[in-house]
Amino acid sequence: MAVGVVIVAAGSGSRLGANVPKAFVTVAGRPLLWYAVRAALRSRPAAVVVAAPATHLDDANEAIDALRGEHGIPVQVVPGGAERGDSVLAATRWLPAECEVVLVHDAARAFTPSEVFERVAAAVTAQTPAVVPVLPVVDTIKVVDADGFVVRTADRDTLRIVQTPQGFRRDVLLEAHRLHGSLATDDAGLVERLGLRVGTVPGDPMALKVTTPEDLDYADRLVASADWAGSSAAALKPS
Amino acid sequence: MAVGVVIVAAGSGSRLGANVPKAFVTVAGRPLLWYAVRAALRSRPAAVVVAAPATHLDDANEAIDALRGEHGIPVQVVPGGAERGDSVLAATRWLPAECEVVLVHDAARAFTPSEVFERVAAAVTAQTPAVVPVLPVVDTIKVVDADGFVVRTADRDTLRIVQTPQGFRRDVLLEAHRLHGSLATDDAGLVERLGLRVGTVPGDPMALKVTTPEDLDYADRLVASADWAGSSAAALKPS
Repeated sequence: MAVGVVIVAAGSGSRLGANVPKAFVTVAGRPLLWYAVRAALRSRPAAVVVAAPATHLDDANEAIDALRGEHGIPVQVVPGGAERGDSVLAATRWLPAECEVVLVHDAARAFTPSEVFERVAAAVTAQTPAVVPVLPVVDTIKVVDADGFVVRTADRDTLRIVQTPQGFRRDVLLEAHRLHGSLATDDAGLVERLGLRVGTVPGDPMALKVTTPEDLDYADRLVASADWAGSSAAALKPS
Repeated sequence: MAVGVVIVAAGSGSRLGANVPKAFVTVAGRPLLWYAVRAALRSRPAAVVVAAPATHLDDANEAIDALRGEHGIPVQVVPGGAERGDSVLAATRWLPAECEVVLVHDAARAFTPSEVFERVAAAVTAQTPAVVPVLPVVDTIKVVDADGFVVRTADRDTLRIVQTPQGFRRDVLLEAHRLHGSLATDDAGLVERLGLRVGTVPGDPMALKVTTPEDLDYADRLVASADWAGSSAAALKPS
């Protein structure tokens, strides 16, 4: 099945101390959006659509300009909506009709290896209508009450940290958003509310969401590091 | 109340690709144990006791040798037991009797700022018999079944990532270990089983447990970084 990738470039950059949306914050001279689109392209989808804030369409086009035509894959920037769900829907509608599998990715997870896109797409193609990449929880997790006192220790073996790209059969994604909504920050959660099963595949520590200045610092060092040369992460270095 | 710190240096280094216990893996030329003890000393406890593998007592003494006498605080290395709980008990028994508050710390959380030790100790002193440092959960968390399918989305607002040092009234810690035991990897969990309330204070992202080669790489860069000079993290640099 043909795969389309939707990249949502909506998050605020304020926690990073930036006065631009997070997707336009730079690492080693390139905006996060550039890294995100580049990783998506390396997984060889049929098309990539970026939902950018209407105020930053020019920035988005500029960010990805050098990637247009890479591997012959079309990359389109479209204006996002008022809420994240609106952006996902708007971008999905721009994907060619042949894309029966849609991966929804957050530009802030800019350093996600292309292998994660491939794993998620393969699992959706193998008939699971919704699939999320996950990591095990390595720390002890406590459930607390409103006053911050521990209620109990969670069974971490049953918990998974959810990353993106999340993958969906296109009809399932559209139905989930139509019914449950524009405020969603977790597309798979909408599919759960439809009563459909959501599968999991292994995520990757590199798929962390860049959220704090420390994350950005980490990303800077990683991209600058010669250590990357021998790993799949080398694919993320600006060339 | 006087505070004693127990540092457990028990974890294996195998996941780090090391053939020594994790506490003796080095970052910028210093073993993790050195960083852990140094941070503990900076919080000005009455005493620090390190529970080291019986096979590595010399290594442990060597690791902390340069820190002996710092701030006039005694640092003692004692042999740990067969299980982690045995090590905690053995080390606690070596603390001076005046230490009514005991902080139990994992040497693998070597870069924990001393402020976390101080916060935990202050909360125990303020009459909460057990206190753990925690971080909020920023990622979406799913509960999965044995086949890896999503059962539901967890309410992450009620979840906390638990770090160390965990702090206890000494009598509570000893009673919890006496009753519930040697296999424990989570001391606060034992106190919960006593039916006592466990409180929380803010942890710190720097208190991450060094687990993977990526964590070690991150720590290396952080310690080497000139960026640290202006922050509390500068205290962690070898001088």
